[in-house]
This record gives sequence, C-alpha cells and structure tokens, in this order.
Amino acid sequence: MSYLRNVKRVAPYTPGEQPRGERIIKLNTNECPYPPSPKVTEALRGIQAGELALYPDPEATELKEALSSVYGLPKEQIFVGVGSDEVLGFVFQTFFGGGDPILFPSLTYSFYPVWAGLYAIPFREIPLREGFRIAPEDYAVQNAGIIFPNPNAPTGVLEPLSVIRRILEENPDSLVVIDEAYIDFADDRKACSALSLLPEYENLLVVQTFSKSRALAGMRIGMAFGHEEAIRALSDVKYSFNSYTLSRAAIRCGAAAVLDEEYLAETLKKVIRTREEAKKRLAALGCTFPDSRANFLFARPPRGNAEEIFAALKEKGIYVRYFKGSLTEEYLRITIGTPEQMEALYQALTE
Amino acid sequence: MSYLRNVKRVAPYTPGEQPRGERIIKLNTNECPYPPSPKVTEALRGIQAGELALYPDPEATELKEALSSVYGLPKEQIFVGVGSDEVLGFVFQTFFGGGDPILFPSLTYSFYPVWAGLYAIPFREIPLREGFRIAPEDYAVQNAGIIFPNPNAPTGVLEPLSVIRRILEENPDSLVVIDEAYIDFADDRKACSALSLLPEYENLLVVQTFSKSRALAGMRIGMAFGHEEAIRALSDVKYSFNSYTLSRAAIRCGAAAVLDEEYLAETLKKVIRTREEAKKRLAALGCTFPDSRANFLFARPPRGNAEEIFAALKEKGIYVRYFKGSLTEEYLRITIGTPEQMEALYQALTE
Repeated sequence: MSYLRNVKRVAPYTPGEQPRGERIIKLNTNECPYPPSPKVTEALRGIQAGELALYPDPEATELKEALSSVYGLPKEQIFVGVGSDEVLGFVFQTFFGGGDPILFPSLTYSFYPVWAGLYAIPFREIPLREGFRIAPEDYAVQNAGIIFPNPNAPTGVLEPLSVIRRILEENPDSLVVIDEAYIDFADDRKACSALSLLPEYENLLVVQTFSKSRALAGMRIGMAFGHEEAIRALSDVKYSFNSYTLSRAAIRCGAAAVLDEEYLAETLKKVIRTREEAKKRLAALGCTFPDSRANFLFARPPRGNAEEIFAALKEKGIYVRYFKGSLTEEYLRITIGTPEQMEALYQALTE
Repeated sequence: MSYLRNVKRVAPYTPGEQPRGERIIKLNTNECPYPPSPKVTEALRGIQAGELALYPDPEATELKEALSSVYGLPKEQIFVGVGSDEVLGFVFQTFFGGGDPILFPSLTYSFYPVWAGLYAIPFREIPLREGFRIAPEDYAVQNAGIIFPNPNAPTGVLEPLSVIRRILEENPDSLVVIDEAYIDFADDRKACSALSLLPEYENLLVVQTFSKSRALAGMRIGMAFGHEEAIRALSDVKYSFNSYTLSRAAIRCGAAAVLDEEYLAETLKKVIRTREEAKKRLAALGCTFPDSRANFLFARPPRGNAEEIFAALKEKGIYVRYFKGSLTEEYLRITIGTPEQMEALYQALTE
C-alpha cells in the first residue's frame, strides 16, 4: 500500500514472555514476587465510577506530592510517566538529539538501542570491563548524553557513587541518566542511589520505577528526578504527546504505594534474603555470576549451556530469561522469586 | 545548562482546566456527565493485588477481543493505546513523514499542529467552508496524509460518509485518518461511522476513544481500526516506545465497558436528548451554532462577547471552553452535561 511508503521503520523491543496459563513459575521479567502494599488495594477499591468519567489531573499532583514527601524533593524536580519505559522514551526524545552519539554499555537494558533507533539518535556501545564493570574513563569521549542502569541489567552489578560522580564531572555538558529501576534492592538503597548527588550536579537525571520493588508492574508507573529545567523540558515533550498519560487509577495507587514505606522495607528484606540464599544455592550447583544487587541473578551454568537449560526449565513451567548474543549466550537471567519458587528452580536445575 | 542545547523545542498543548474544587459544573472538556457502566466498577473491584505485580499483557488481548466481538473486526485490525491521544501521537509518528505536508482543517482539534511540531511534520491547514463544512475538493492536493475529526471539534459538525468516501478516493496514496472521538453521539452511530468503509479502502484509519461516550476519560483508553498492515506498522512504533502502555486496570475496565452495549445506548440516548433540548434553549437565548452531532455545542452568544461570558460563567463555578483566535473568539464550546447542569447554565446565561 503506497501510503506505507513513509512509515517509520523500526526494530521493536521484544518483551519477556507473559505466559497466561496457571501453575507457571515466572522468573523472567524481574517482577516482584509479592503483591503491592495493601494500601494499594484500598486505593483501588476507593475509586468511584463517577470519577472515571473525568480526565485525570494532567500534573498527577497527588502522586508527585507523595513522591515529594518521601524523596524530599520539590514537585518541580519530579516527572512521572507510564512506567520508566515511557519516562525513558521521553528522555531519549527530549535530550538526545544533536549529532554526537550517546553512550551506554555494550551489555545493558536492551531497550536503549531501540529508542535510539526510534528517534534516529546515533549511539556508541562502550564495552564493560572485567567483571562487567563500568570504567568512568571509557565515557570521557565526545557525546550527546550518557545512560546506564545502576545496578546494571542484566548483570545486577552495582557501581559505587564514586564512579557516577566521575562520569558526571568528566561530562559537564552532557545529561547523565542513571536508570535506577533496581536500586531499591541494593542493600542500603539510600546510600547507593544517585539521588543524593542531585544537589551537586545539574546534569544528572535519575529514573526509577514502581514495577519492581513496589510490585506495580501491572499499573505502569515510573518517575524521574532531576534539575527543575530538565524536568520542565521533559514535561513539555510529554504534554506535546499526550496530556494525560497516567490514569486516575495509576495516580491513586502510585501515591498509596509510595507512602507505605514500611511495607516496601519488608518486601525488600524478603527479596534480598532470598537473593543471598540463591547465590549460595546456585554457586553450590556450579553456577557463576557477578555479585548482583538487584532482584535477579545473571548466572552462567557450569557448562555454559544456558539456552538448553532455558528450554528445559520452560518445559517444567519455570520461565527465566535467555538473551541470544555473544555477551549473554552462556547466561540466564533469573528473577528472584519467593523462597518456594526458588526451591522449585533449584530442584529443576539439580535434575 | 549546556546539556539543554539539544533539547527538543516544543509548544505543548494546553489541556482544558481540571478544577479540583467541589460544586463546580464542568462543561469544558467534553467528558460524559454520567458514570461508566456498572460493569466497569465490577471489573475494577475484581482486580487482585497480586495481579498488579505482574506486567500487563502487551497485546491487551482481553480488550482487543472485546472490541473485536462488538465491532466485528479481527484483532489484527485493532490497535489500542492510552487514550486516543496516544493513538494519534503514534499515528503522526508512524505515517506522516516524508516531506509533503499533511492536511487538516483550519478549525479542528488543536493537538494536530502540536504533534506535527513534535515530529517535525510539515502541515497545511485547509480553511473550512460556509457553515464550518469540509469540502472534499480542497483536499485534492499533494499531501503526506489527511486527518480530521468527524464530527469535527470544536464545531460538532458531522460530515456524511459521501464526503469521506470522496477524500479517500481522491487520495489513494495517502493515509486518511478519521478521528471519531464523538461519533457515538451522532444519531445513528453505526450508519455515520467510517468503520463501514474499512472493507473498501485500505488507506482509511478510524480512531475512537473511551473518554467520551463510554465515560472513561479517567482510565485513558483509545483505539484505532484499520488495515492489518497499517495496524502492524503502528504497533511496531508503539513497541519501540513502550511495550506496556495500557495498565491491567485499563485493559480490564475497557473490556467491561465495551461489552455493555445496552448501557452505552442508554447513555447516548440521555446525552442526545439533552443536546437537542440545549439547542432549543440556547437558540431561545439568541445564541447561534452549527448543528452539532457531538456531545458539545459551539455556540456564539448574541453579541459575540464569548470571552466575557466565559469569565462570568467561571465566576459562578460553571466551566466552559473558550479558544482565543480569530476563528473561535466569538464562540464558546459547551459540553452537554446532565439536564440539571444545563439548567444551571441556562439560568446563569439568562442572568
């Protein structure tokens, strides 16, 4: 059909499988194995039919105020969107033009090259060093922006703030985006988050999500924290795309989730305990992996036959993630589930 | 800050005010004055906390299947998104590249030039004819695509299918997008909708929304119906931006709303009855307006002093919409509310 001549050619991202059957153990998309705070259910039940007829608050004030009170930043430094994916999509579109390539690690969140493709942004993948580490000096080259997750995905490796600080200082003219989807699972999340650097660096943007630690992947909420001017630029692009991206349900449930800090702390304690146990059990089975500070392990089975094991686990109804490609083909990314789900995994791996 | 040098410059859309106070009569954003189907509340109450921890189905299968059964089109011809605004944003991004301008009426949904700006798409505004009508011959010029709402906004004027047919036939190499946000309020919606032309024209895309007739503006759901290849192209761009834009709540509530056709029919009957009554009452007050087939009236007060009346109504807690600009400055766009809300409006206008 000739009108398709102008169609944007893209290579879409492939999300992890979402099997719809019962009795599946789903350790493939880094979701939280526990439900969200009971306050979320309460908030959802409290929504009246009549409210749904009205557009949501385009500023999502209720959610931003909740984030503001918990994270100690003014609303003007907070942006919210439909999952951190929408937030990151807008980040690419807003800040990463201009001709120079943006930089990100060669092994990282596989959506980055997809967004770069969508917005025709040149990019350069920087190889990781030994142990899947990021070396700040590798990022001291001409660029239009830098982005990486911390902890990194799919490795789970957490870089100390000193590394981020050096990258920020060596790139004062670039926006440096730290994608902290998994930061809450670092053992001391407040000490590990780049949020503490915001008062010092105006070129820092920190992105987080409700999909992991706050167990709201199904509700689609993400956020960015940054300098007021950067947040304004991001909001302007968002308002040019869709005035109201977050539904009333998302705003209400998100606010309820943020305010229940005690519940979050309990969830984190459970997931971290299971992760540390998983390290022992998988090591005992001969697996090797970088020391993850996220809610997943990037594990190499003793013979490196990851694809085979991936398929065998799937046969048994246990879904983990396998990425083709020379850097990843000997590894499985295994989400930390409940202790019971993990027992089933160890059992299956032993067989 | 120097990293802002590459920031995308945009002129964001200004949504209608969302006053947060009580005792406001809100006739400014074309929302439905009635709540959504009771099935929607039921669906919302049925969502379990545990489900929210899991990502939604990226295909929104449940919603597409509901749409498929009610609209009689296969899933492959249906696209869904976060309101028709997200759908239309993707339409602009996917189809409207290529150098030639796209065409839309000079008086129309004010988001069209915003999207064109966001994606650097040249556009040409085609003046409306006498009575705010669209003349197909005005669209028989070189273009990269055509888009207009039917009924048009903010005029409420409905063009017959013969007009759409002529535009489709004269532009076989262009995608023609009919934005049917308000089509359900046309007196015989099935006979008036361009959906019936889909089997004949592969260059037709019909966009609709849950925000108006289905009273779900707060949940953010929109859809497009078109040729399978067009829907695939649209989906590819969407998957490059965000795999999961519709939340589990939106998918569940949307499906429930679509399947309750009886409730929709009742809502439509009430809104149409109030609209026809409003025509009489406003005419009696000396207002003039094109004959609206939408859930709003584009009314010119007898002395054309729309801005003044807009402000006076706001003083009394009645919000209508006023657009500056030479084509609109003598008019108010008034959403059809409940009979009680409309009485309050007539009362205030009389004063």
